[in-house]
Amino acid sequence: MSSALLEQLIDAFRVLPGVGRKSAQRMAYHVLEREREGGRRLAQALVDAVEKVGHCSRCRDFSETPVCATCASAARDAHLLCVVESPADRLAIEQATGYRGLYFVLQGRLSPLDGIGPSELGLDTLDARLGEGEVHELIIATNPTVEGEATAHYLSQLARGRGVRPMRPAHGLPLGGELEYVDRGTLSHAFGSRSEVP
Amino acid sequence: MSSALLEQLIDAFRVLPGVGRKSAQRMAYHVLEREREGGRRLAQALVDAVEKVGHCSRCRDFSETPVCATCASAARDAHLLCVVESPADRLAIEQATGYRGLYFVLQGRLSPLDGIGPSELGLDTLDARLGEGEVHELIIATNPTVEGEATAHYLSQLARGRGVRPMRPAHGLPLGGELEYVDRGTLSHAFGSRSEVP
Ligand SMILES: [Zn+2]
Ligand SMILES: [Zn+2]
Repeated sequence: MSSALLEQLIDAFRVLPGVGRKSAQRMAYHVLEREREGGRRLAQALVDAVEKVGHCSRCRDFSETPVCATCASAARDAHLLCVVESPADRLAIEQATGYRGLYFVLQGRLSPLDGIGPSELGLDTLDARLGEGEVHELIIATNPTVEGEATAHYLSQLARGRGVRPMRPAHGLPLGGELEYVDRGTLSHAFGSRSEVP
Repeated sequence: MSSALLEQLIDAFRVLPGVGRKSAQRMAYHVLEREREGGRRLAQALVDAVEKVGHCSRCRDFSETPVCATCASAARDAHLLCVVESPADRLAIEQATGYRGLYFVLQGRLSPLDGIGPSELGLDTLDARLGEGEVHELIIATNPTVEGEATAHYLSQLARGRGVRPMRPAHGLPLGGELEYVDRGTLSHAFGSRSEVP
């Protein structure tokens, strides 16, 4: 390496997820060889986002305003509240489904060993909100992991305590998937939750 | 997506090689959730490198000074000049071998269809340098592709025209590699270049 600045850039790229030394090097070379303008744009976008994107006070999703556009929208059904672990999960649901209710983004999952309890996930705020009476259904879309399931259990207790119906999206065999390629957990769950053909 | 700045950041990440919509999204979320300081550092490193890293006038490698540290070093053997296609190739050789000569970085390979001829690769400068008499061996380490081989052929003619010995690194079976996993081209080349056991 003949340039300390290039070395510093390679190092800096390693902050990104899944980027090791080799990919960081490829990224730095690519920017310097072919994308200096794109590199400048990325730098500006990073600064803007890091400085100005915070969290929505209603749903905890990323937002550059105190209340995000979704929470502020009169077009969404405020009777439905969908709880997800991350902004990416929220985005996946928004893009794939016709869901028109509101969201609540935990920004994590219950994980006592890591010191992540109800208050770290904003569940006190959520509880208060359920108490306001506007939410009729709490759709619990945490991930099907051990911690996700524990979080889902906690959330359904919370909902019941406030007289709100706790709901879960259906789990089972993916549509169009061949049985032989479905993971064991899903297959086992699908068999355990079998129902009579009507 | 509730934030235009977040959307802009995801877009900007796509300038990086091998980064599609999904990875760009993961990178943006990762920076905002866990690495705001790292994101700021990456932005600064990008600006610094894009503004200040140019090319060494001797070897065409990236450099933030007119002549790079390697070219300026008295400790390198100026009789040996190794030609590589890219800064990454140069770095790989520097890190893996004990080579102590100098380099010349083409920043590409001959590719007439893409309008890349000898002058785009700085081969006029290289020719003049070979004419100075200091270089005794030109080690041609272009890649074993059709264009790399054509470039190697051109370079060896250039060297011979200046009374410089054109050399190539050995090609053949990788050390420790099992024959059955070696690619066909390498295997075929290795058999074609077989030599008698001494
Ligand atoms: Zn919101
Ligand atoms: Zn140089």
